[in-house]
Amino acid sequence: MPIYDLIIIGAGPAGITAGVYAARKKLNFLVITMDIGGQAAWSGDIENYTGYQFITGPELASKFEEHMRKYGIALKENEAAIVLEKSGEVISVKTDKGEYQARSVIIASGKKSRELGVPGEKEFKNRGLTYCATCDGPLFAGKEVSVIGGGNSALDAALQLIKIAKHVYIINNTGQLTGDEIMRQKVEAAGNATVLNNSQVTAVTGDKFVSAVKIKDNSGEKELAVQGVFVEIGLIPNVAFAGKVERNERGEIKIDSANQTNIPGVFAAGDVTDVQEKQIIIAAGEGSKAALSAFRYLARKKF
Amino acid sequence: MPIYDLIIIGAGPAGITAGVYAARKKLNFLVITMDIGGQAAWSGDIENYTGYQFITGPELASKFEEHMRKYGIALKENEAAIVLEKSGEVISVKTDKGEYQARSVIIASGKKSRELGVPGEKEFKNRGLTYCATCDGPLFAGKEVSVIGGGNSALDAALQLIKIAKHVYIINNTGQLTGDEIMRQKVEAAGNATVLNNSQVTAVTGDKFVSAVKIKDNSGEKELAVQGVFVEIGLIPNVAFAGKVERNERGEIKIDSANQTNIPGVFAAGDVTDVQEKQIIIAAGEGSKAALSAFRYLARKKF
Repeated sequence: MPIYDLIIIGAGPAGITAGVYAARKKLNFLVITMDIGGQAAWSGDIENYTGYQFITGPELASKFEEHMRKYGIALKENEAAIVLEKSGEVISVKTDKGEYQARSVIIASGKKSRELGVPGEKEFKNRGLTYCATCDGPLFAGKEVSVIGGGNSALDAALQLIKIAKHVYIINNTGQLTGDEIMRQKVEAAGNATVLNNSQVTAVTGDKFVSAVKIKDNSGEKELAVQGVFVEIGLIPNVAFAGKVERNERGEIKIDSANQTNIPGVFAAGDVTDVQEKQIIIAAGEGSKAALSAFRYLARKKF
Repeated sequence: MPIYDLIIIGAGPAGITAGVYAARKKLNFLVITMDIGGQAAWSGDIENYTGYQFITGPELASKFEEHMRKYGIALKENEAAIVLEKSGEVISVKTDKGEYQARSVIIASGKKSRELGVPGEKEFKNRGLTYCATCDGPLFAGKEVSVIGGGNSALDAALQLIKIAKHVYIINNTGQLTGDEIMRQKVEAAGNATVLNNSQVTAVTGDKFVSAVKIKDNSGEKELAVQGVFVEIGLIPNVAFAGKVERNERGEIKIDSANQTNIPGVFAAGDVTDVQEKQIIIAAGEGSKAALSAFRYLARKKF
């Protein structure tokens, strides 16, 4: 089995940027990933990736992908890391399809959607209930839909759906929306959106497809008739494979300012880490830092 | 005097990205800067800003500037910060033209070129000796030039000059070039570039304009006839105004992973900080983090 200089797990903004930097440093490396573009590909309109005044998530993700492919990077797609282990100076990554070895690893496996954990959620998944407004929004043209959540992801989903659906209910379990002021203003100005604060979803109901969500608020329990439910209540890190790599109380991988984890040679970057802010431009910067740190590590070790 | 939520010092990739994020959070803020685009505007060809496979430094800097101006940000240009002081909860920034107050500050003032410190350097500055290949390279068409340095900045300058000048001498005081392998290969493939390792520049000579550099190497001292000298031996942080803000042994501002300095309310981002890698994509990510941290600080303080 060849021993790579580096394995990058994940190909979102952090993993792809790490790949571009590793390629420019002429490292012998492999990218293992379930998908390309990560959460960025699921974003709606992006106005805060410096240099692009306006771009959609899928467009930016495709620019990232082209940028990576230009370098002819060795890529294992639709492949999931299952176990990461270090033995001596060699790190092995077992996946659902094979096993690979490297001197260093960058974990950039991102996050996945947090689930509501209410009755009906699993039953109606992809039958009206979804975790991706960008992917599934267009299916709800002219319908009444609900977005569960109150942060930037929820507002981003709502802003996409306002253009498509008949009416958008934003069901938020805190006293007010927590997303960017500019996005809140756009939602309020829309005319076809209603914000329901202090509201907890207790169930998703329907027959073959979603027909309503049950909500508990200060006045008791009620039912809201909707044909679509978009769950946007946060993300949890993809770290099931990460073995002895240290994590914080939210399950995020702990890194220092050079993106090193507690295991020498194992670095991490992007949404999977304990860097507080989850932003595409930040993930890209962190991916670059992680690749340059891995390069320094390899050079110092003189493998 | 109005008290702003935030003052951003500097408008390179870090300061501009901080500005875009602050604008989207609807903060009442001011940007004070000497120039727009920072070191990015001085870069040659950029192939590692994820999303842009290829863009020149001035082009990317101008996209950054447009992105910032879109938000109608209050901007004081050609203005230098001189003293930063905190008294109670108010931070005051004195400049060469006025004085401003804010609840929080992001220092994103970047770095400036390190000088050689040899006879002739000051005398021939802008008379053949320069610190910016992007700005001044085109003046040396068909001439023999030297680049002093061996890192990425020196290679970047050399790659620009190879296309313009008759011959490029890269004068490097260590045993080998330290820049990216891909750039080293391009320099070697050029045909009109010579790398002089283990070589120290001891003086710049000429009459009205540069005519030669004096070099000391293992075999002694010699003179190299050149009409241009491009100094690329590193950068030093612009921190003369930073007062009690803590710095490391290289003069860089010490920050934690949320871009906080030792002074509450004072944040820093980009090349001016102790983040080891100096890259546009990293500076942009750091600017975003600093703005979001400043926003959290202001929200927590409920100013």
